Amino acid sequence: MAAFHPLVASRVHLSPLLPAAAGPAAAVAAGLSFHRRRFSAIVAAATAPTATEFDFKAYMGERAVAVNQALDAAIPAGEPPAALHDAMRYALLAGGKRVRPALCLASCVVVGGREAWAMAPAAAVEMVHTMSLVHDDLPCMDDDDLRRGKPTCHVVYGEPIAVLAGDALLSLSFGHMASMDSYPPDVDPEKHPARVVRGIGELARCIGSEGLVAGQVVDLEMTGSTETVPLDRLEYIHLHKTAALLEASVVIGAIIGGGSDEQIERLRKYARSIGLLFQVVDDILDVTKSSEELGKTAGKDLASDKTTYPKLLGLEKSREFAEKLLCDAKEQLADFDKEKAAPLLYLANYIAYRQN
Amino acid sequence: MAAFHPLVASRVHLSPLLPAAAGPAAAVAAGLSFHRRRFSAIVAAATAPTATEFDFKAYMGERAVAVNQALDAAIPAGEPPAALHDAMRYALLAGGKRVRPALCLASCVVVGGREAWAMAPAAAVEMVHTMSLVHDDLPCMDDDDLRRGKPTCHVVYGEPIAVLAGDALLSLSFGHMASMDSYPPDVDPEKHPARVVRGIGELARCIGSEGLVAGQVVDLEMTGSTETVPLDRLEYIHLHKTAALLEASVVIGAIIGGGSDEQIERLRKYARSIGLLFQVVDDILDVTKSSEELGKTAGKDLASDKTTYPKLLGLEKSREFAEKLLCDAKEQLADFDKEKAAPLLYLANYIAYRQN
Repeated sequence: MAAFHPLVASRVHLSPLLPAAAGPAAAVAAGLSFHRRRFSAIVAAATAPTATEFDFKAYMGERAVAVNQALDAAIPAGEPPAALHDAMRYALLAGGKRVRPALCLASCVVVGGREAWAMAPAAAVEMVHTMSLVHDDLPCMDDDDLRRGKPTCHVVYGEPIAVLAGDALLSLSFGHMASMDSYPPDVDPEKHPARVVRGIGELARCIGSEGLVAGQVVDLEMTGSTETVPLDRLEYIHLHKTAALLEASVVIGAIIGGGSDEQIERLRKYARSIGLLFQVVDDILDVTKSSEELGKTAGKDLASDKTTYPKLLGLEKSREFAEKLLCDAKEQLADFDKEKAAPLLYLANYIAYRQN
Repeated sequence: MAAFHPLVASRVHLSPLLPAAAGPAAAVAAGLSFHRRRFSAIVAAATAPTATEFDFKAYMGERAVAVNQALDAAIPAGEPPAALHDAMRYALLAGGKRVRPALCLASCVVVGGREAWAMAPAAAVEMVHTMSLVHDDLPCMDDDDLRRGKPTCHVVYGEPIAVLAGDALLSLSFGHMASMDSYPPDVDPEKHPARVVRGIGELARCIGSEGLVAGQVVDLEMTGSTETVPLDRLEYIHLHKTAALLEASVVIGAIIGGGSDEQIERLRKYARSIGLLFQVVDDILDVTKSSEELGKTAGKDLASDKTTYPKLLGLEKSREFAEKLLCDAKEQLADFDKEKAAPLLYLANYIAYRQN
């Protein structure tokens, strides 16, 4: 297992987020003493102009309503084949915090685009997210019965329909992004198609053997193994299984919004940090919260002896690592317009400090 | 079950291919007496100028080699996650006649495009086809152990990897179509992105709840049912499960080749006829050929009491229906350049008269 190098193995160039030279815990501690000092200053600088004006809860609530409307309109209720459409709608409209769509919309705005341009990609990334949950929950995979506080798709509709609903959601995500009907009439007719093509390339890349699926494959391999997962491999899993789609959500928003290559790459770095942050926090929550609070089976990772950040680093060091990632993410926002960057800043905070 | 109308049910407007008013057998007979008379004339007119020059076997062989090279290059061998890449390559490079890619390439050329422009979409439609086979063969679906003369993907790699390999192939198909690296440098930089977006829309539509997946869902419903499947529902299954992807292959080729809307729609009609033809012939072969000849489990439809054209219409009437569909397809080619249309004409013949 020593020959496994996730960042060599990956065909995406994901730069390492965790300094690995002196062993994980030491590296985190070393990185943190510096990052700690910058932490307050960065947060203060980025939030100061809008701290009292920006209502994050209202922002997220309004986006969730709009995204849910787009998702609802994208899949006809009751039309045949009814079982398929019902299963797709069941999985897709089960609530959820719509973090990925919000990232996509906020990223479009921060580079100067209109939020409405990114509504179709925002819906698309949520379809992809849902599809990955439906397939990962299958009996032959993670065999999960509970998701977002409800029975999983295959429990309600059976395994064949769950597989097919996932496939249909995946193809719909691309179809939705490609359809001109999904966009408002004021998109630039000259530049829009090339932006959509580039965005679809990002979406495709974050799903397959360089993204979600790769992460799930290595995750499954680790689950069946008795050896302890080394930190670099845990990071590989999370960068692919979680961070890749968060990265695509942000990057696609920036592309559709007409961002420059330099802006897009800065936002990509932001997204990678919050992507790994998301998973570190998820691991922490799994150890510290009940199923009821989480809306899914808690303690599952420990019960199945799954390697997590708390297991490898301990709870305290995991929290410190999360803080470092939050700092890194916020640094990338420093050169954007403060007001327009507020949602991305608050989204990073939310991902770091959420309770479920 | 009487309330089920596939052409109303479908959100795609698939015009009925089989006149249904006077009952299936009567309709076929009525349609055929007219079509029979035209049959020889149309074939003669369309093939006359190139009949002695066009070597269909060589044409298909050369395209298969080129498509296999594109597919081989699209998925890295041995790179991690190795199990995933191996499973994708195993399913994708297992041979197969590459009919869909050939249709895509031929369609690009018939509207005046360069064949090389359509190589990426041609590879993409084969990825989608393979993905649908891998998922349809799963234990929870059709539970098939043999495909193209080899053990199916889940038999070799296990169920979780088979599900994930299908997902990865599906996303790769879109990624491959969207990547500018997949196209030769002489595509029109102004028009190409819009064509790719439109092509991706067609590809997405033929997969999900308006295509392959819808067909598989209704097929599964029928398999579990004791009632005889009415002809209109059988046609719904085949139009979605088989014809939709053949249609997309042809239409995407025409879009990428820069065809006019009128040309694209004529080729769409051609594709719908050969799409249903493909399945009628498949049903006939299942009854008349051995597993060895087919490279898959033969007689499976009869053994599972599955409704097929031969079962509903009898063998002879099924053959006559196939002939009518072949005539309809060829009619759509009449106004294209004879030499450029030769591959599509021979492909229609091949689909009608193939022995496996």
